[in-house]
Amino acid sequence: VTATTRAGLRVGILGVGRIGRMHAELIAHQVDGLDLAIVHDVNGAAAAEVGGRLGVAHTTDADAVFGSDDVDAVAICSSTDTHVALLIEAARCGKAIFCEKPISLDLGHVDEALAIVREAGVPIQVGFNRRFDPAHKSVRDAVAGGELGDLHLVRITSRDPAPPPIEYIKVSGGIFLDMMIHDFDMARYVTGSEVVEVYAQGAVRVDPAIGEAGDVDTAAVMLRHADGCITTIDNSRQAVYGYDQRVEAFGSGGVAASDNPLAHTGVRRTSAGTWEPLLPFFFLDRYIPSYVAQWVAFRDYVDGGGQSPVSADDGRAPLVIGLAAWRSLREHRPVPVAEIT
Amino acid sequence: VTATTRAGLRVGILGVGRIGRMHAELIAHQVDGLDLAIVHDVNGAAAAEVGGRLGVAHTTDADAVFGSDDVDAVAICSSTDTHVALLIEAARCGKAIFCEKPISLDLGHVDEALAIVREAGVPIQVGFNRRFDPAHKSVRDAVAGGELGDLHLVRITSRDPAPPPIEYIKVSGGIFLDMMIHDFDMARYVTGSEVVEVYAQGAVRVDPAIGEAGDVDTAAVMLRHADGCITTIDNSRQAVYGYDQRVEAFGSGGVAASDNPLAHTGVRRTSAGTWEPLLPFFFLDRYIPSYVAQWVAFRDYVDGGGQSPVSADDGRAPLVIGLAAWRSLREHRPVPVAEIT
Amino acid sequence: VTATTRAGLRVGILGVGRIGRMHAELIAHQVDGLDLAIVHDVNGAAAAEVGGRLGVAHTTDADAVFGSDDVDAVAICSSTDTHVALLIEAARCGKAIFCEKPISLDLGHVDEALAIVREAGVPIQVGFNRRFDPAHKSVRDAVAGGELGDLHLVRITSRDPAPPPIEYIKVSGGIFLDMMIHDFDMARYVTGSEVVEVYAQGAVRVDPAIGEAGDVDTAAVMLRHADGCITTIDNSRQAVYGYDQRVEAFGSGGVAASDNPLAHTGVRRTSAGTWEPLLPFFFLDRYIPSYVAQWVAFRDYVDGGGQSPVSADDGRAPLVIGLAAWRSLREHRPVPVAEIT
Amino acid sequence: VTATTRAGLRVGILGVGRIGRMHAELIAHQVDGLDLAIVHDVNGAAAAEVGGRLGVAHTTDADAVFGSDDVDAVAICSSTDTHVALLIEAARCGKAIFCEKPISLDLGHVDEALAIVREAGVPIQVGFNRRFDPAHKSVRDAVAGGELGDLHLVRITSRDPAPPPIEYIKVSGGIFLDMMIHDFDMARYVTGSEVVEVYAQGAVRVDPAIGEAGDVDTAAVMLRHADGCITTIDNSRQAVYGYDQRVEAFGSGGVAASDNPLAHTGVRRTSAGTWEPLLPFFFLDRYIPSYVAQWVAFRDYVDGGGQSPVSADDGRAPLVIGLAAWRSLREHRPVPVAEIT
Repeated sequence: VTATTRAGLRVGILGVGRIGRMHAELIAHQVDGLDLAIVHDVNGAAAAEVGGRLGVAHTTDADAVFGSDDVDAVAICSSTDTHVALLIEAARCGKAIFCEKPISLDLGHVDEALAIVREAGVPIQVGFNRRFDPAHKSVRDAVAGGELGDLHLVRITSRDPAPPPIEYIKVSGGIFLDMMIHDFDMARYVTGSEVVEVYAQGAVRVDPAIGEAGDVDTAAVMLRHADGCITTIDNSRQAVYGYDQRVEAFGSGGVAASDNPLAHTGVRRTSAGTWEPLLPFFFLDRYIPSYVAQWVAFRDYVDGGGQSPVSADDGRAPLVIGLAAWRSLREHRPVPVAEIT
Repeated sequence: VTATTRAGLRVGILGVGRIGRMHAELIAHQVDGLDLAIVHDVNGAAAAEVGGRLGVAHTTDADAVFGSDDVDAVAICSSTDTHVALLIEAARCGKAIFCEKPISLDLGHVDEALAIVREAGVPIQVGFNRRFDPAHKSVRDAVAGGELGDLHLVRITSRDPAPPPIEYIKVSGGIFLDMMIHDFDMARYVTGSEVVEVYAQGAVRVDPAIGEAGDVDTAAVMLRHADGCITTIDNSRQAVYGYDQRVEAFGSGGVAASDNPLAHTGVRRTSAGTWEPLLPFFFLDRYIPSYVAQWVAFRDYVDGGGQSPVSADDGRAPLVIGLAAWRSLREHRPVPVAEIT
Repeated sequence: VTATTRAGLRVGILGVGRIGRMHAELIAHQVDGLDLAIVHDVNGAAAAEVGGRLGVAHTTDADAVFGSDDVDAVAICSSTDTHVALLIEAARCGKAIFCEKPISLDLGHVDEALAIVREAGVPIQVGFNRRFDPAHKSVRDAVAGGELGDLHLVRITSRDPAPPPIEYIKVSGGIFLDMMIHDFDMARYVTGSEVVEVYAQGAVRVDPAIGEAGDVDTAAVMLRHADGCITTIDNSRQAVYGYDQRVEAFGSGGVAASDNPLAHTGVRRTSAGTWEPLLPFFFLDRYIPSYVAQWVAFRDYVDGGGQSPVSADDGRAPLVIGLAAWRSLREHRPVPVAEIT
Repeated sequence: VTATTRAGLRVGILGVGRIGRMHAELIAHQVDGLDLAIVHDVNGAAAAEVGGRLGVAHTTDADAVFGSDDVDAVAICSSTDTHVALLIEAARCGKAIFCEKPISLDLGHVDEALAIVREAGVPIQVGFNRRFDPAHKSVRDAVAGGELGDLHLVRITSRDPAPPPIEYIKVSGGIFLDMMIHDFDMARYVTGSEVVEVYAQGAVRVDPAIGEAGDVDTAAVMLRHADGCITTIDNSRQAVYGYDQRVEAFGSGGVAASDNPLAHTGVRRTSAGTWEPLLPFFFLDRYIPSYVAQWVAFRDYVDGGGQSPVSADDGRAPLVIGLAAWRSLREHRPVPVAEIT
């Protein structure tokens, strides 16, 4: 028995928590043209467990990844506060970069890191995976392809089955930076137009502890885009019926929308009514195909050059919108994005 | 051949334009316990045509309706600027009143008329027919019945197939008073909670002539309710795919929503994709059952007493919200409803 | 107040039981270009009640209808055993004929009547209303328009909410002639091809009394068409979830299907699942638009000539298929339609 | 880096064509508690390629699998004509057996092999994976749980996107044994009742070459079950709109059905209509979760004992029904299953 040799792009994973472990498994088993080279985590047991299971080297020393000639690209999947330092080091070592979102909660640090990345000229792709979901993408394609004419309104809903731990909320930047940031990216992605103004409302409806941590758990935001389009977004930390994710784009030529898949396609009708299953509860049940497609896009981008599917600017802009949303909520007024620098 | 005698509530119609003519036909043919007594219009030919076709008396003199002993109730279906005078006269003559929305565009006039109606003690029901749509009502029933727990967010979309004539827009009060007023009513109806603050955005995206008439054709509004619930509404004057009307209520216990019926239930799949029909384009195709149910509710209310299904206050409140929306749009800030008096 | 004069086709109704009364009301109120002239029933009180309510003459004497110069067309809506005599008399009097299905349960009588109708040259349309349902029609249009290519298979389901009275079943001809006859018509309508062979299965699953009356309440039939297409049909006398009516046509180019409308478009999701309303329970809630469209087609056919939308042959053929189905069930073998004469 | 040791059930794969390779990958990566031990194929290159990629031993000698102490269970995934010999050898060596369907096209050989398996007392599960599809399973659960009351009718549709190669059709046993056999299993699974009679119709509508190979490409079958329930099945070798798989069970308490998932949940409405995506075209896109669940069921059955999820009898019965279907088609009459022995 001989291990086959695939001449793929060799990826090292930095951080194998929930999301990093998933990326490691996808690269190892489900994406042609990518090879898992090594996994890293500051928690040595976690690194050893993942590496062992997937049959690759593991380390607690990030420099062993950056310095390896067997690593072409790194996936930065560690906690948000470590992203900037790893980005800078990856750029210096000339590695292609995949970086989970958000790049950082501090706009100054983001700009510092991205300047270095740009100067190094290495490829960079930020982890806004929903762009690669086929249903959401079909909405964007309907806009970009002109079928919807001039875009007038976009509506986005994102509701999680249950809130994250309070400890996470305390360091995550809150709902606008840890959750709605995906929707800010979606608003830019679907419309193809920058956001120029933000108006935010929020409330603590699910759990008072979320309020005590300085966050809200229910939020509605209205965005104005440079081209005049309006986007409305609503978020909730708790949807008891499952993971609810919908996008709708309306224009002069019609409407396009992505709906939720249900857990399966069974239906039942009795004298009491019609019954169908719920939405999936786990985000991976909905988004695994998008994560796979994200890696395919990364591979093609690094191999083929051209424009990043989710560029450094695409990584920065939603953070700015999120900061504007927080200011709008606190000052109870519409906030021009240009205020945030 | 002898005409049968039904001992129903006898209704006189004031104004037989498009909506008054529909009400006359529904009363004549489709609602047990209501009799069409007489039709009135300032346009004598219109009155004669409708009366003749439905086999009832017709007149151009409103006093012939108010003074008739054969009329128990009047339906005020004439142009908005005539509502207040007719309301006052109906109250003075002790007739039960059905009044189309809006009662008036002038809040002072509304208050004057409603004071007289209240003093006269006559029944009054305002024509917010969408409350009687079975799908929208199922959303409200899910809230009122407690199945959704605490309500957190409501989303409402109303899009018309095509804009009304510019001449109408010039006198209608604009999008917030001629169109979104239905959605302001729906927000109060579904949540059961008063609106305390309004933030409005608007744009001219469909037709510059609408802007020149002082109106917008695309609008998004965020409402805050007394109980902390947030409602978002979007409106468009032109949805090329049909008459789009949806309500969604989200709470701690789940979500309830009303979707659009399609023109029919046929579906086709070829190698090019799946094809289904469009939404109905004419509002009556969607809402005729709600108009019938509205008359059933009126009959039961006038016969049986109790609370009006759509009270004078229910008629006034959406007007106030609409005026606040206009102020919010013009002053680019969230406007407390209490500012409008 | 003067009654308006419409120069429409003047229709006399023969028989104002449930279906005749509905036709009378539709003609009186909902179809332009048709006038209700007179209503007839052997039950004088029924005739008087309907005539009175709709403001037209009534009679218990069918000859008063046939002999009237004010009647252009007759609608034969009386019990099935009276159809043939009325058809013959109508043809002799030169009236255009609308005849409810089935024409008769006796093939010899059908042929006798249709020969006389043909000789008289009067227009005749048989009451297979489902052809005018927009969803079923969209299936047929997809076939007739060539979008589905060569047709391979058709699937038809018809399930009633509850069985008819046993007294009706005893005289109705049983499930293949009182219920599945609609589906035999649909099979010919959708495919555009004659049926050449029938295989039937049946069972008493709902109510033993139906079996004691010589009928089955559950049936499945397979048809072979002249062009090689196969149609499968299932029927049940009792679907506790509502009136279930679906047609599906599958061919080399794709598939087209008609689904059931639900009672309304509300949906609810809680932690217990997704809930939607049931199908309508009353056949008129589903098929009123088809009955209106059927009258519009009759009007246009009588006014404009050409091919009958549902010809005498279209009335006869499903009866033959139904008789073959009974023989197949009893003899437990596929039965060529040519056996039935 | 050390390979982790999982104390799972060790499975050897016999045959790594398309289906065997899929099973090998699922066992290697996606099912906890199963270990891939070795892969075998008479084509040494295929065995080496799969073994190498998955990091396990490979061989062209089946005895190396049967004789290995490191193999607890075998998965027989080779061509149908080899199944019986492998089954017998596996039983003699005391291995737990997973066997792809059909066991054999020859009923005598099936009985011979199953007798030996029974005598050996080894666990055996046959590969009717659709039983593990969550939507189809929800239909069965509604029946088994009593929610549908007495079962009256079942409808099953299976349509493949495109025909298999003619070479395959020549040895596959034809549509009733290579394709509809899944539906025969589904009929037994959903109803929980044996099939007692079969009536089959078939036609060559897709490709004359299929007819020349002695097969049909379009088929409709009616089954009668021991409990009186009727099942209708339709099959086509070519559905240009995708892989169409639906089951519907109707009874005294209501109806349950499994529908097709669409490729994604995007929808588009323009003035030209509503557009949705197609069904998936590849059977794995629809059924991968069922294959995973099938392995979980195998693991639990082998570990825990009890009844096989898909027993030897469940493997034999659909073959008998398929042989009856061929006889029915050829002799043009309903065929009692008891005729086939």
